[in-house]
Amino acid sequence: MKIGIVGGTGDIGEGIALRLAPMYDVIVGSRDEARAQAICECSIGTLKTRGATFHSFKGATNQDAVSCADVVILAIPFKNAIATLEGLDCFEDKIVISPVNPMEKRDHFTFVPPVEGSAALMIRSLLPKEARLCSAFNTIAANKWKALDEELSYSVPVCGDDESAKREVMKIVNSVSKLQAFDAGPLAVSSMVEALTPLLLNIARYNKMHDVGIRFM
Amino acid sequence: MKIGIVGGTGDIGEGIALRLAPMYDVIVGSRDEARAQAICECSIGTLKTRGATFHSFKGATNQDAVSCADVVILAIPFKNAIATLEGLDCFEDKIVISPVNPMEKRDHFTFVPPVEGSAALMIRSLLPKEARLCSAFNTIAANKWKALDEELSYSVPVCGDDESAKREVMKIVNSVSKLQAFDAGPLAVSSMVEALTPLLLNIARYNKMHDVGIRFM
Repeated sequence: MKIGIVGGTGDIGEGIALRLAPMYDVIVGSRDEARAQAICECSIGTLKTRGATFHSFKGATNQDAVSCADVVILAIPFKNAIATLEGLDCFEDKIVISPVNPMEKRDHFTFVPPVEGSAALMIRSLLPKEARLCSAFNTIAANKWKALDEELSYSVPVCGDDESAKREVMKIVNSVSKLQAFDAGPLAVSSMVEALTPLLLNIARYNKMHDVGIRFM
Repeated sequence: MKIGIVGGTGDIGEGIALRLAPMYDVIVGSRDEARAQAICECSIGTLKTRGATFHSFKGATNQDAVSCADVVILAIPFKNAIATLEGLDCFEDKIVISPVNPMEKRDHFTFVPPVEGSAALMIRSLLPKEARLCSAFNTIAANKWKALDEELSYSVPVCGDDESAKREVMKIVNSVSKLQAFDAGPLAVSSMVEALTPLLLNIARYNKMHDVGIRFM
């Protein structure tokens, strides 16, 4: 399976690529293809040093990361989502994963959804209707993705309206470290999932913790 | 310390009373004082059967549960919050705890906040400004409160604008079973906490689980 990461050279994208590369062909997308290739070479070095085996792992444009992939992960900040997606096509029939959280840091971290109700619902409105969108990975911190010595023992709620796409995304989630996927229901539930991330950032801030995650139990 | 429970004969109120009675004087409030007394007698029987020691544990009107208490827990459904609070007074200088979640069951469970942004912020607008309101206990299921044989190994986010009241509420949280209180920041964060409960209900529903809780880690 080929997984393309739009925004793959950002903090979260880089970590996701490192964690997925041992199991999948990974295409790291960026606005700057040369930068994507450089990050990939660096990541390949990291994986080789650790003795990890990996499949194809290459840098590309964001468009190639979409066009060449079976599954596309949108590892982009909410504020860039509209501009990025308006510049890309070929999402038809792809499974698309949104880990995007619309939030702002004011006095505290706060959930600031778009008029659609959530980033995922807004992104759905920007994609062709044949795209099979799910939200997942919303609450996993960038530092945790990159900390390859640490197991990720977190729960991951997955939302989506296409049941078979959701099953595929849950399989991908469950293939990473000790992440455990939970079906959170339709894409409309994504607002409640996306609101969790600013809550976790507040929990970290007010309790002097770092990179707080969650477990359902 | 005297803890009054408004709505103390409801599902959640009854369980909270059972869990708090070994540590605090508990006043179980109800619109129907005779019903509150009957529930209390039943709960006292349950505690005696278990060999639990407890302080004063009595049934009363909701107003007495406010007037006689140092700390008031609003164990009421969101839909009853306005009518209940408009009929009560003497909240001045009390610590008040809102575990209230504004949500609806449609196709799935969904967070439906009032115009203030959260139940806690709406409740603040209904209380005198001297009341020291915090939100807490939002995500603990009624069945879990009542299952006295089970430890409650959950995380509890606590929100509030009065720092000393928040510290007191966190102490109360930490005194119950294995609950662990986390400072979630100001009362404005309560919207993100309240949205967690419908998410947990969706997780339970779509994964065939019961009474799902959370742990921050």
